[in-house]
Amino acid sequence: MTQKTYTLTVSCADQSGLIAAVTGCIAETGGNILNLAQHTAVDIGMFFCRVSFAGGDTFSDEGFTAAFSVLAERFSMDWRFFHNAVKKRVAVLVSKTSHCLYEILLKHADDELDCDIPVIISNHPDLAHIATSFHIPFYQVDPKKGKEAYEKDLQDILRQYDIELVVLARYMQVMSAEFCKAWDGKIINIHHGFLPAFKGAKPYHQAWQKGVKIIGATGHFATEDLDQGPIIFQDVIRVNDTCSVDEFIRMGKDVERRVLVEAVTRYLKHSIFLYQGRTFVIE
Amino acid sequence: MTQKTYTLTVSCADQSGLIAAVTGCIAETGGNILNLAQHTAVDIGMFFCRVSFAGGDTFSDEGFTAAFSVLAERFSMDWRFFHNAVKKRVAVLVSKTSHCLYEILLKHADDELDCDIPVIISNHPDLAHIATSFHIPFYQVDPKKGKEAYEKDLQDILRQYDIELVVLARYMQVMSAEFCKAWDGKIINIHHGFLPAFKGAKPYHQAWQKGVKIIGATGHFATEDLDQGPIIFQDVIRVNDTCSVDEFIRMGKDVERRVLVEAVTRYLKHSIFLYQGRTFVIE
Amino acid sequence: MTQKTYTLTVSCADQSGLIAAVTGCIAETGGNILNLAQHTAVDIGMFFCRVSFAGGDTFSDEGFTAAFSVLAERFSMDWRFFHNAVKKRVAVLVSKTSHCLYEILLKHADDELDCDIPVIISNHPDLAHIATSFHIPFYQVDPKKGKEAYEKDLQDILRQYDIELVVLARYMQVMSAEFCKAWDGKIINIHHGFLPAFKGAKPYHQAWQKGVKIIGATGHFATEDLDQGPIIFQDVIRVNDTCSVDEFIRMGKDVERRVLVEAVTRYLKHSIFLYQGRTFVIE
Amino acid sequence: MTQKTYTLTVSCADQSGLIAAVTGCIAETGGNILNLAQHTAVDIGMFFCRVSFAGGDTFSDEGFTAAFSVLAERFSMDWRFFHNAVKKRVAVLVSKTSHCLYEILLKHADDELDCDIPVIISNHPDLAHIATSFHIPFYQVDPKKGKEAYEKDLQDILRQYDIELVVLARYMQVMSAEFCKAWDGKIINIHHGFLPAFKGAKPYHQAWQKGVKIIGATGHFATEDLDQGPIIFQDVIRVNDTCSVDEFIRMGKDVERRVLVEAVTRYLKHSIFLYQGRTFVIE
Repeated sequence: MTQKTYTLTVSCADQSGLIAAVTGCIAETGGNILNLAQHTAVDIGMFFCRVSFAGGDTFSDEGFTAAFSVLAERFSMDWRFFHNAVKKRVAVLVSKTSHCLYEILLKHADDELDCDIPVIISNHPDLAHIATSFHIPFYQVDPKKGKEAYEKDLQDILRQYDIELVVLARYMQVMSAEFCKAWDGKIINIHHGFLPAFKGAKPYHQAWQKGVKIIGATGHFATEDLDQGPIIFQDVIRVNDTCSVDEFIRMGKDVERRVLVEAVTRYLKHSIFLYQGRTFVIE
Repeated sequence: MTQKTYTLTVSCADQSGLIAAVTGCIAETGGNILNLAQHTAVDIGMFFCRVSFAGGDTFSDEGFTAAFSVLAERFSMDWRFFHNAVKKRVAVLVSKTSHCLYEILLKHADDELDCDIPVIISNHPDLAHIATSFHIPFYQVDPKKGKEAYEKDLQDILRQYDIELVVLARYMQVMSAEFCKAWDGKIINIHHGFLPAFKGAKPYHQAWQKGVKIIGATGHFATEDLDQGPIIFQDVIRVNDTCSVDEFIRMGKDVERRVLVEAVTRYLKHSIFLYQGRTFVIE
Repeated sequence: MTQKTYTLTVSCADQSGLIAAVTGCIAETGGNILNLAQHTAVDIGMFFCRVSFAGGDTFSDEGFTAAFSVLAERFSMDWRFFHNAVKKRVAVLVSKTSHCLYEILLKHADDELDCDIPVIISNHPDLAHIATSFHIPFYQVDPKKGKEAYEKDLQDILRQYDIELVVLARYMQVMSAEFCKAWDGKIINIHHGFLPAFKGAKPYHQAWQKGVKIIGATGHFATEDLDQGPIIFQDVIRVNDTCSVDEFIRMGKDVERRVLVEAVTRYLKHSIFLYQGRTFVIE
Repeated sequence: MTQKTYTLTVSCADQSGLIAAVTGCIAETGGNILNLAQHTAVDIGMFFCRVSFAGGDTFSDEGFTAAFSVLAERFSMDWRFFHNAVKKRVAVLVSKTSHCLYEILLKHADDELDCDIPVIISNHPDLAHIATSFHIPFYQVDPKKGKEAYEKDLQDILRQYDIELVVLARYMQVMSAEFCKAWDGKIINIHHGFLPAFKGAKPYHQAWQKGVKIIGATGHFATEDLDQGPIIFQDVIRVNDTCSVDEFIRMGKDVERRVLVEAVTRYLKHSIFLYQGRTFVIE
């Protein structure tokens, strides 16, 4: 029988003995550590740690949880505990451009995104055929109904499918502050610009006007401040001044799709710590 | 006898027959084209061209200039004509950090920067020994005298050495609007941030607070709007969330020195076209 | 009426007056140059040039061809002349892995590969469904019939569809010397290693054993010497020593698909010059 | 009083409980872990771990060493224990090109290389002035004396200065098998090619002939097999087909100097594990 594996994430103020305490607790409750990544952010005195471990014969959820609660109390830790076999349920929201959706579905088909994708939602009918060819239900929502009614439809679908993470794969609708708060830390958006530069609409046009020599894309958590949520992953590509805006758009697609998948991957691996408005991604 | 070589730069509204006209004029006046780079910016309908050529037996400056003037008039061209053997005279301005100064002097010593560097100027005495070891006069100017008096001192030194290009190699003084206008398109600054993000002071601290995953540096023309002049060259480096601000600063140095040298190189090769507040670098 | 556009490629020993002669001939026969890229390889004294131009009212194929033939004779030029509106017919050959095939089909659907793809051929049935969903005929060939019979089948299909370029998109069969010669300069292969290192089978395993810190992929023309044909495009990705061979394979896929599309794109744009066993890609 | 800090490196066959055992032993002997990096190489079933920690009031070298020896015996660990305050003594060997030497000296002056550099040795007099300007003794050795006599001179100087690491900063002499064995794992060389491609002489010429689109440099341990020792760090730069061999050489310099410093940095941080002819660099 294969052993069950778990991931534990811990963050707290930096203090002596944290790693020994965490690893000791896992060992004492019958867990075998497979991988440990940790970081002390000296600029703010914070400790972040992510441990994956296998449960041995004597390991039990209850036993570990009880033991670790004591430790967490002592060190004032924020902590989360995940069963690796339990897959997150992810909804993908799209509009008219297909490159990010295809990337997610192809990576998922290749077992590179460790989640379930039970539903695809769009404000346009254009990409329904892609959902169909990957055998995933496709729903169309209508923003013209009014923000409130439309977001209620969205919420209903997300609830119906027990969605835990919403991925905006070039979804061209701004979410309300209420929606963002309801899904705080659970919406990942791809912005086609190198944030914090080039927020908002037409970032490639902005970049071309400014004459930048490198363009990029940013995967980030959506918050009520448009394109200002915590950054998860970024990548860039060098452009030269013989490129037109259209070429920026074309070249940018490859960066966008890669960045979105990398951002979602880090979320699914529980590698992202949110603290004071920024992320610490510990891999 | 080695033939003299020249560089011609041309920009104008896009129209039919430009390349044939330019290359034809060079051939008819006895020039042999060595290299031609050209770009039509379709977004704004502009043509940019840079040609280097050798003068044959029948070639003369006056003959070429007379002939090309007629062409330039016909097509409403902006054009400039350079003797490649004539080196630009460049002043380097520094403060306390040495990495950009060293890079410029070492590249110059390795014949990779095709210019003369007759003077180094600073608002601090700290780097005088580097100037000395490279046998270049070092002048200290004193901003505490007041902006006007201090900038007059600066101008006097630049005039005394017949300077044609001012390179700010991590020079920590903001220039007045008057100074920037007097040297319009002739001051190259290195900013230690990926513009247009992170203008102004402490860009690495800004970047760390924001949690960006890539940091960069920007070589640009200085204008009266701080860190907003036309961008010449940029480069970036991936950082991870285990880096402290101090590590950003340390890692950034390598990007800064490289970007500054690349920006100056492009200037010396006459590869930079300035148009409507941005550059078109045609290589 | 939109003007027809053309591409001219020229290579010859370096000599004075080449660019003026080429551009002059185009102008005199009624062509308007849109873009010109040229390079003189000083190490071997060769000139390479690629010009795209629009035909004006007085332009005719026959007129241009006649005029340019005279020029080509005088300068001993190799030259080729293409109508940009005429699309190359490309066959894609695959085996069992889908990432390169998907990339080609998605880029083609996005109008980023300027060719026709009338047929997909495989030595396995696994990817037939992808061909179907993109509405492209899929043929299975059987290497077990023996090299000769199997390659005859292949040739028959390629002939039937008037194929001009064969793209091996992770096609896991070595072609015979006869086949490679028959299609000399017309087969583009993707090798999942950074050539000339790691030729042959299992390049990612070789790379892992060697402990390299960067892995790559190479798009090249197939010749009878396995994985030694002229290189068209390469790209790399940094790996770290915590990666397993399986992770190399997974990470490498993104590099492979990108490199293959870039190599094919350069071919379709007539940017590749073959000379003495290497390419000169002039963009 | 600042606490003393230490680095412990451990490698052994993978088995359950390693991390808990290592961190437990440190905690029990009065150490506080500052940073822990670990990797299990699944392809070969090996565990590598690097821990830095501070010694608390009750910590003693002898106490820790005694306790850890018991653990190491139990798990059949290879282990090494370093006082972080004790700097390695490094000799730099050079020939005629200065870029790698300058890089090392400038990074050292900027406190980015945590070592002492008590001596510079060369087979040519050309770079003596650089040693002088950084106030470091410079010795010239003469390979024309014969391999044996010359390497004895070299050994004498290295011994005189208690050298622990030899850095070949573009040192153009092949070391004998005896010398390489005597300094096994303690000579870092910079090769100006992307190994394992382009071993031996004139790698940039080889790369140009082959028409590669990316060139690189490799920092590696020198062994008796020329340019085949374990790779520590590599980096690359994209080139295009308009570059001459001379431009490869010029562009390559920036890659070489960076790669050499990165390789030496990893050595000084005790991040390099040597196993079965390759390195595992765990950061």
